[in-house]
Amino acid sequence: MKSEHKELMKQRKRNICLTVAYDGTEYHGFQRQKNCTAVQNVLEDVLPRIFNDSIELAAAGRTDAGVHAKGQVVNFFTDGIIPVDSIPRAANRLLPNDIVVTAAREVDRDFSALHSAKDKIYIYKVHNNKIPNPLLRRYSWHYEYNLQLEPMQKALEYIVGTHDFSSFKAAGGAPNMNPVRTIYEAQCEKEDDMYTFRFWGNGFLYHMVRNIVGTVATVGNNRMSLERFKQVIVSKDRTKAGKTAPPEGLFLWQVNY
Amino acid sequence: MKSEHKELMKQRKRNICLTVAYDGTEYHGFQRQKNCTAVQNVLEDVLPRIFNDSIELAAAGRTDAGVHAKGQVVNFFTDGIIPVDSIPRAANRLLPNDIVVTAAREVDRDFSALHSAKDKIYIYKVHNNKIPNPLLRRYSWHYEYNLQLEPMQKALEYIVGTHDFSSFKAAGGAPNMNPVRTIYEAQCEKEDDMYTFRFWGNGFLYHMVRNIVGTVATVGNNRMSLERFKQVIVSKDRTKAGKTAPPEGLFLWQVNY
Repeated sequence: MKSEHKELMKQRKRNICLTVAYDGTEYHGFQRQKNCTAVQNVLEDVLPRIFNDSIELAAAGRTDAGVHAKGQVVNFFTDGIIPVDSIPRAANRLLPNDIVVTAAREVDRDFSALHSAKDKIYIYKVHNNKIPNPLLRRYSWHYEYNLQLEPMQKALEYIVGTHDFSSFKAAGGAPNMNPVRTIYEAQCEKEDDMYTFRFWGNGFLYHMVRNIVGTVATVGNNRMSLERFKQVIVSKDRTKAGKTAPPEGLFLWQVNY
Repeated sequence: MKSEHKELMKQRKRNICLTVAYDGTEYHGFQRQKNCTAVQNVLEDVLPRIFNDSIELAAAGRTDAGVHAKGQVVNFFTDGIIPVDSIPRAANRLLPNDIVVTAAREVDRDFSALHSAKDKIYIYKVHNNKIPNPLLRRYSWHYEYNLQLEPMQKALEYIVGTHDFSSFKAAGGAPNMNPVRTIYEAQCEKEDDMYTFRFWGNGFLYHMVRNIVGTVATVGNNRMSLERFKQVIVSKDRTKAGKTAPPEGLFLWQVNY
């Protein structure tokens, strides 16, 4: 039944790909939910009004509750006739102002926002100050204890490469998922009291970025040595790593195809 | 009665000065309101719990609904005994996370956050892009039309100095207030698609910064010449100036004593 439905969807004329930015603060993540509001719910409510068609979309990445996106990518099949250039403005007129369609294009029929993604960039921001800043609180992790940039940068070097990232997967995550990912870049920069982490990889396990940042912060706070950080990766044991950094600092920044 | 009450307040032992930061999005401005929540309401609810004393505070500047502050300054008299160093942490534990006490000090009895202020700095941010950005919308004016930096910078040069700023006062503002102010610095910088205006002056009329930015944007959008902008100032006529820029881009940045 489900695959039959999928085939019916694919008989529609156009495959539309949207880039979507959102402030995740008020949403229960990206993925459609039954009893609370996810970003997908809002998009699937609004888009039918401009396409005159039911819409079922697939996304490049499922962001968690409170996580933001600058460049989430979705696609869906439709018979709707609105020209691509008109989609962002038409959609944004109807969307709440914390969700914005930033670009639209028509893509090949075999394009999938989820499966065609080659690599992704995530950004994580840490505001390091004894005093919280109410103007930064929605878009960064407020970390009040001491952090040192250099040991964190060294720890991130161990993240780069092809590894089994089981140590950083979600504690209750799917047990059968292949935990091997390749990280091309893992960096941290500091400007005033704001640390910006940047991760570029071919894929990320559920909670992986937040678990890496939570553990790297333990290194930056001098509560974990670099040697032990290295062992955490090799151990493939989630219980050895640090806590999960909170969602408000995380941004799905870019998806490349 | 009122001045008698003021004298009673002044008999209290300590004059406490706080620096307060807030995200103004959810508040009906700074000044205490009867039927809606202002930042002052929240502070006057929370502070008595750590001072064990009723609190009536005065602020350096009354920010409007939706306007933010990085460095609002308030003072009040109290017999409460909590040491100044403990005030920020104690207050922030009780305050909602969009209002933060960033510093506290004990000041001379004749210090007034309002009357002792020598000068103030306001920042105004304009996000200039056809597409809105949901991650910037709370803290900037989204301006979708073309803006040119150079004519705006030239217009701001006319703002610097001692002038009668009647052209930029609020349309319905107090008619008897002296409209002469001295502006020491009025600048605009651009980084990517964000313009940051900075105003440093000995005082500002109600809505003055937002009216200046609204009018300077008209110059930047090439709908008003520099010559006409100059005439707007000289005319002292509010109806000649542009519209009031929205509150979300404005920050009371710093008050100097």
